[in-house]
Amino acid sequence: MNQPARRSRKASLPPGTLVHVGRRHSQSTTISLLRYGPEGVSQTDDPGDQVLAGLAAGPGQAWLRVQGLHEIQAIGRLGDLLGLHPLVQEDIVNASQRPKLEDYGAYLYLVLKALVWDQDAGDYRGEQISLVLGRNFLVSFEESQGPLLEAVAQRLGNGKGRLRGQGADYLAYSLLDAVVDSFFAVLEELGDQVEAVEEVLLANPGKEVLRRLHLLKRRALMLRRAVWPLREVISALERQEGGLVAASTRLYLRDVYDHTIQIMDAADTNRDLLAGLLDLYLSSVSNRLNEVMKVLTVIATIFIPLTFLAGVYGMNFKHMPELEWPWGYPAVLLVMAVSAAGMLYYFRRKKWF
Amino acid sequence: MNQPARRSRKASLPPGTLVHVGRRHSQSTTISLLRYGPEGVSQTDDPGDQVLAGLAAGPGQAWLRVQGLHEIQAIGRLGDLLGLHPLVQEDIVNASQRPKLEDYGAYLYLVLKALVWDQDAGDYRGEQISLVLGRNFLVSFEESQGPLLEAVAQRLGNGKGRLRGQGADYLAYSLLDAVVDSFFAVLEELGDQVEAVEEVLLANPGKEVLRRLHLLKRRALMLRRAVWPLREVISALERQEGGLVAASTRLYLRDVYDHTIQIMDAADTNRDLLAGLLDLYLSSVSNRLNEVMKVLTVIATIFIPLTFLAGVYGMNFKHMPELEWPWGYPAVLLVMAVSAAGMLYYFRRKKWF
Amino acid sequence: MNQPARRSRKASLPPGTLVHVGRRHSQSTTISLLRYGPEGVSQTDDPGDQVLAGLAAGPGQAWLRVQGLHEIQAIGRLGDLLGLHPLVQEDIVNASQRPKLEDYGAYLYLVLKALVWDQDAGDYRGEQISLVLGRNFLVSFEESQGPLLEAVAQRLGNGKGRLRGQGADYLAYSLLDAVVDSFFAVLEELGDQVEAVEEVLLANPGKEVLRRLHLLKRRALMLRRAVWPLREVISALERQEGGLVAASTRLYLRDVYDHTIQIMDAADTNRDLLAGLLDLYLSSVSNRLNEVMKVLTVIATIFIPLTFLAGVYGMNFKHMPELEWPWGYPAVLLVMAVSAAGMLYYFRRKKWF
Amino acid sequence: MNQPARRSRKASLPPGTLVHVGRRHSQSTTISLLRYGPEGVSQTDDPGDQVLAGLAAGPGQAWLRVQGLHEIQAIGRLGDLLGLHPLVQEDIVNASQRPKLEDYGAYLYLVLKALVWDQDAGDYRGEQISLVLGRNFLVSFEESQGPLLEAVAQRLGNGKGRLRGQGADYLAYSLLDAVVDSFFAVLEELGDQVEAVEEVLLANPGKEVLRRLHLLKRRALMLRRAVWPLREVISALERQEGGLVAASTRLYLRDVYDHTIQIMDAADTNRDLLAGLLDLYLSSVSNRLNEVMKVLTVIATIFIPLTFLAGVYGMNFKHMPELEWPWGYPAVLLVMAVSAAGMLYYFRRKKWF
Amino acid sequence: MNQPARRSRKASLPPGTLVHVGRRHSQSTTISLLRYGPEGVSQTDDPGDQVLAGLAAGPGQAWLRVQGLHEIQAIGRLGDLLGLHPLVQEDIVNASQRPKLEDYGAYLYLVLKALVWDQDAGDYRGEQISLVLGRNFLVSFEESQGPLLEAVAQRLGNGKGRLRGQGADYLAYSLLDAVVDSFFAVLEELGDQVEAVEEVLLANPGKEVLRRLHLLKRRALMLRRAVWPLREVISALERQEGGLVAASTRLYLRDVYDHTIQIMDAADTNRDLLAGLLDLYLSSVSNRLNEVMKVLTVIATIFIPLTFLAGVYGMNFKHMPELEWPWGYPAVLLVMAVSAAGMLYYFRRKKWF
Repeated sequence: MNQPARRSRKASLPPGTLVHVGRRHSQSTTISLLRYGPEGVSQTDDPGDQVLAGLAAGPGQAWLRVQGLHEIQAIGRLGDLLGLHPLVQEDIVNASQRPKLEDYGAYLYLVLKALVWDQDAGDYRGEQISLVLGRNFLVSFEESQGPLLEAVAQRLGNGKGRLRGQGADYLAYSLLDAVVDSFFAVLEELGDQVEAVEEVLLANPGKEVLRRLHLLKRRALMLRRAVWPLREVISALERQEGGLVAASTRLYLRDVYDHTIQIMDAADTNRDLLAGLLDLYLSSVSNRLNEVMKVLTVIATIFIPLTFLAGVYGMNFKHMPELEWPWGYPAVLLVMAVSAAGMLYYFRRKKWF
Repeated sequence: MNQPARRSRKASLPPGTLVHVGRRHSQSTTISLLRYGPEGVSQTDDPGDQVLAGLAAGPGQAWLRVQGLHEIQAIGRLGDLLGLHPLVQEDIVNASQRPKLEDYGAYLYLVLKALVWDQDAGDYRGEQISLVLGRNFLVSFEESQGPLLEAVAQRLGNGKGRLRGQGADYLAYSLLDAVVDSFFAVLEELGDQVEAVEEVLLANPGKEVLRRLHLLKRRALMLRRAVWPLREVISALERQEGGLVAASTRLYLRDVYDHTIQIMDAADTNRDLLAGLLDLYLSSVSNRLNEVMKVLTVIATIFIPLTFLAGVYGMNFKHMPELEWPWGYPAVLLVMAVSAAGMLYYFRRKKWF
Repeated sequence: MNQPARRSRKASLPPGTLVHVGRRHSQSTTISLLRYGPEGVSQTDDPGDQVLAGLAAGPGQAWLRVQGLHEIQAIGRLGDLLGLHPLVQEDIVNASQRPKLEDYGAYLYLVLKALVWDQDAGDYRGEQISLVLGRNFLVSFEESQGPLLEAVAQRLGNGKGRLRGQGADYLAYSLLDAVVDSFFAVLEELGDQVEAVEEVLLANPGKEVLRRLHLLKRRALMLRRAVWPLREVISALERQEGGLVAASTRLYLRDVYDHTIQIMDAADTNRDLLAGLLDLYLSSVSNRLNEVMKVLTVIATIFIPLTFLAGVYGMNFKHMPELEWPWGYPAVLLVMAVSAAGMLYYFRRKKWF
Repeated sequence: MNQPARRSRKASLPPGTLVHVGRRHSQSTTISLLRYGPEGVSQTDDPGDQVLAGLAAGPGQAWLRVQGLHEIQAIGRLGDLLGLHPLVQEDIVNASQRPKLEDYGAYLYLVLKALVWDQDAGDYRGEQISLVLGRNFLVSFEESQGPLLEAVAQRLGNGKGRLRGQGADYLAYSLLDAVVDSFFAVLEELGDQVEAVEEVLLANPGKEVLRRLHLLKRRALMLRRAVWPLREVISALERQEGGLVAASTRLYLRDVYDHTIQIMDAADTNRDLLAGLLDLYLSSVSNRLNEVMKVLTVIATIFIPLTFLAGVYGMNFKHMPELEWPWGYPAVLLVMAVSAAGMLYYFRRKKWF
Repeated sequence: MNQPARRSRKASLPPGTLVHVGRRHSQSTTISLLRYGPEGVSQTDDPGDQVLAGLAAGPGQAWLRVQGLHEIQAIGRLGDLLGLHPLVQEDIVNASQRPKLEDYGAYLYLVLKALVWDQDAGDYRGEQISLVLGRNFLVSFEESQGPLLEAVAQRLGNGKGRLRGQGADYLAYSLLDAVVDSFFAVLEELGDQVEAVEEVLLANPGKEVLRRLHLLKRRALMLRRAVWPLREVISALERQEGGLVAASTRLYLRDVYDHTIQIMDAADTNRDLLAGLLDLYLSSVSNRLNEVMKVLTVIATIFIPLTFLAGVYGMNFKHMPELEWPWGYPAVLLVMAVSAAGMLYYFRRKKWF
């Protein structure tokens, strides 16, 4: 996930050539058009070329949803009908983009990256969403049919919130908001896991903690890198001059901008905490090594000299007068006891146990 | 505390929906209005809708205090009466905001975070305070009935200081000052604990020091993150153009701005000190390991060869001529003594003890 | 590769003196001129001085390719014919430049660095490409005859893409794009290797991992340093004022600029991952040391006291009453068994194994 | 020293309340006035209220020195006579300020921090000096009667240098210069100690080196933090617009500004050196541990197997045919010698000694 | 070299007092004047006061070289004749300056630092060069008679390059170029040594590597700190407005500016490499410790239990039935062999050898 998708097979092709870069999906590309206004919503699946060419003219606001990006011909024809620049068409089908905003005068082109849980990989995955925002229409390109934009579509359908009464720029804001909310979910899970690791670490730091720390660090890094460029996109959208974004929508964009700041702040806090936890882990490993060595040293230092003494009186020399003494054995035992007690006293004074 | 409050249950709701995010409080929401001017102060508890709607019109300055944020309907009705933007209402009841200042033309919306000692958690806790500053009124929203703003209210009540003679902007400054002072208390306790840990560390670095270092680092981090956005809020308030902040108040805001710089500076110093202390701790752990190993090595290196020698003459071979020699035993003892002395000399020269 | 080529032999020479700094190539310098326009392409190898002097005048667009830079006289004469500033001539033959863009009014001078795999060195190598961009001509200087610009020349030859219909600035963009694409290849290989090392590290971290980590870190560093100045060059080219870059080309430059951002972002991610992997490696080394020491300590701590006990009853004192007892031997064995069992219990409780 | 003085007892007091924050001094507050011009200097100790109120009017330049800050009433009355803003008065008596410059139109308020050796604490101490610079007067507030400003007063007294012929702004510069010179003394001592530690470290790194490194790191940190805000103060003073600083004085301010850059640069160099020395120390500790372990391992690995062999032939089995062999004993000795030599050869090849 | 020269003896002197700060040189101060133009060069050693006072008036361009700075009276008189500001005079004789550029209207004052190999110290040394650049004259002040500027003087003498045909600003550029070239020599030697250390480290990392790493890190740090301010000086000179720097010279200044960027880039690369090498070294130390411990543990863990077993049957109890068994001895040997083989199998499975 940290690596960009394979771009190298694009090398040495002329720019503007449409090449799908991203995961292969079996599902086909579907296109549906939602026209809406304060009075209601009407949906047209698979609209004809004439409808598409007249997208900007039609009554009310229009949201054209494109799902699935690997049918390059379909995307290309759609792009030509909408009058999109070749570079925009190229970027739409290339799912390895960074979030960005580009102003083509008549329309704005936005690339967003949502974080979506990938059941198969057991990790989050970046899901690229491209938006083309015109004066009264919005075209969204999704890599696959995910639930992310579906919630906004439902809100539009049942007329909740302000969506129907506002322009396409407010719809774009709503989609941005949905993407940012997807980061909050990741962030909260990250925070929970950091706290869980911290508790484990303070209680009983085992070896598997290290791997969990590594994975959490990776995820915090990933989150930060995902939010950072999005923040710039939102900021650029808020400051956009050219009439495509209404003044009333700017307030909402500032709000979602604050959310990205909040996410980055919390992600940074988590990274700092994780760095501190790694230090803590390493220190406690050192500490345990110290303890292990102390045990070994205490035992060895007490018994090795005693064993030597026993070895001396186990020698088979003919002439060893001590062996004949009646109190020789008790005397040696006494010497041993005193020596062991001295050692113990020494270690106790050094606070080794 | 480092984690933002649960925001995820807000996901997929339309923006502007009021959802209380924060700790649950049992106490109900209380509203009280203080009208004041140079001549005196009058308090109205639980003011009626008419009074609230005419807040900006009334004579003198008005301070509307709202305590307890989980009665969403009450907050919502109040917000509508005061003409607050839906996003402001949403942020007021969402206690997971970062400090910020937003200019809505007719009023400024400020979010502050004070640090309050939480007896139950045994740690500091961020207490969100929202301020709405109009031309001659200030509305404050507190999460709970804490002592933080109470001191300012008392000063207003007994007429001490300049509060009564100044506008609502000066009152806002006073509240900001109270919040910043709450950081100084945290900072000083932090400084005391860092010094205490340093003394312990230089005297006798035990294992519990590590955990204290970790907790202090966390707190310094928390303090810095709390002050950083507040600094920007104060700076933005000082530079605010639109007549809501008087020139005379700007001097005071610059003063409280300097305080935030001072706090961040001291928090950074403490973080640097803590990083140095962790290094010191790890080094002293390494040093002690070194010492432990030296003791073990000296003892083992002296006695292991001697034990071997004793073992040789403890063998039961029939033909071991040394065993028969009359001076065999003293000769072996002599060899042992010389060998031990040589080892000791070697270690002494290597400065191992 | 990280060291600049030997510049010191240039010291104390007057500036503007042409000295070839770079690898020596046996091949001679070849010059070929491609004139192109929407209607077609014509190639002239080894054009005469008159043709060169009239480069800017001629019909359509001109691309003058110079390959091989060590024939200083030839480069110098060419530079004089084209009216290039002495400093530009000096920089063209000095292959130790950083990427840069310099505006000489009548033309722009660009230095680029592509990364090319060097089979002999077994590592990537920076290949310097200098571009001189005039109103309707482009001169490219390559260190050697590599495949990098060849792809663009072929695209020009077979008329694919927009190349023929655009000006020399678009050709310059195409060469920039080819250079940036060469970085994507390096980046992807780097990403693959980082993932491979991560898998090895989590499975069975051996000693050779360290060296691989070191080499990968070096490469990520190299990549970042190569892309960083290139990014500034592209940005300066996009903002260039003076009519040498058409507005339509700026869109393409912004696109390739985004690619450099993407590369730097991924290179940084890889560096962070590698730093994390080094931490992981060091921690696992510490962990294994800990385990080794535990094994030693458990064995030594159990058997050293037992050996001592055996040593005591191996002493040859005449008067050792225990030796005579009929149950002496079993009793000692029992004591030994109990002591060993106690030690094992102690270590088990300490979770040493 | 790194901790700000106790500010918390100021909490919940209205701003502008004078509270002395700082070390308690027994000495009383003394005030003396120096009027000077090209023709000479006249000193008035303890000037009356009328003299003070007319400070700005009087002939020539005036320097009012206030020493000792804990007599709050005296400072307060003086401040009112001079027309100082309540916040300025509050900051003068609060010795926990950071260096700063505030422009009150009619006068500039500067806070400086000199570093003074504190004999009792055995460390440097921050000495706060507040300056109020008017058109033709300067008021200095010192925490105690130290030698720092005395040197400038003497230069004024004996007419050396340009002091008498210049305005109060040049006097302010001279005081700033004296403060910055106090940093140079600290810096040079720091540099000497870093070199001394480096020599000790390369020769014979003992345990006390660690504590010295820690203290030096602290001091370099302290120095940097003291100079950093001072630099901003000088820069702001140089750029000050409003006629209080003459153009001729700006050159001198730029000079002292360069000195602060120089100090910070050297302090940073010392910090980098200290970080390098800590690394060096830790590495040499690891190295010594390695050596200790090698000695232990060589000795133990050679003798433990030999001791085992001796133990085998010390067993008391009835049927041990080797014991009867006439060459048994020499054969065992030979086996032992060969085994020891093999071990030694193995360790030598591994370069363990 | 990292420490600034002793400045403290300047403390409490009035600013503008000339005090020589730097190494003492025995040689006296020599002054020589070179007047040059396209037609030729004329040299006057030890020019009279009249000549010096008329320096700016005289025909063509003038280069006044001053070598040796400790004759303070001579420098002071010269400075007064040339009309140099007292602060400039003070800085010229104080060899502890940082590189800087100061604009005094009629002339520019530049301080440069070249790196010169000091045979006695066995290290590089900063050599301060001060330049005073007027409309048609340049005054250079060197600490001693070194070869650095000599090369430029010779080029001027034999008329090579563009020197004679250009103004004093081009001469200043040539001196700057010579100073920057002195850094390239240091950089290349640094690069060579880093590569040498890397090879040693990967082959056989001994203890002396650590000290070399430390010294190289110090040198890279020194180089960076020397180049950083020089870069700003060149940049300020290029942007200088006031007619002292010709437009044609700016191109050359931009070129030398690029060289400083190149040096800093390479110095940073070397620092990163050195940091990586230190990590590598520390890791390999840990690895070797691990190996040593494994050898010890394998040997001790195999033989300690065997020795214990031998000890048991070396006990002298009367009633030890095993000792009487005819197969007791072989049985014990078998048990020992099986136990040793089991241990070996265990360690092999753990991949310890």
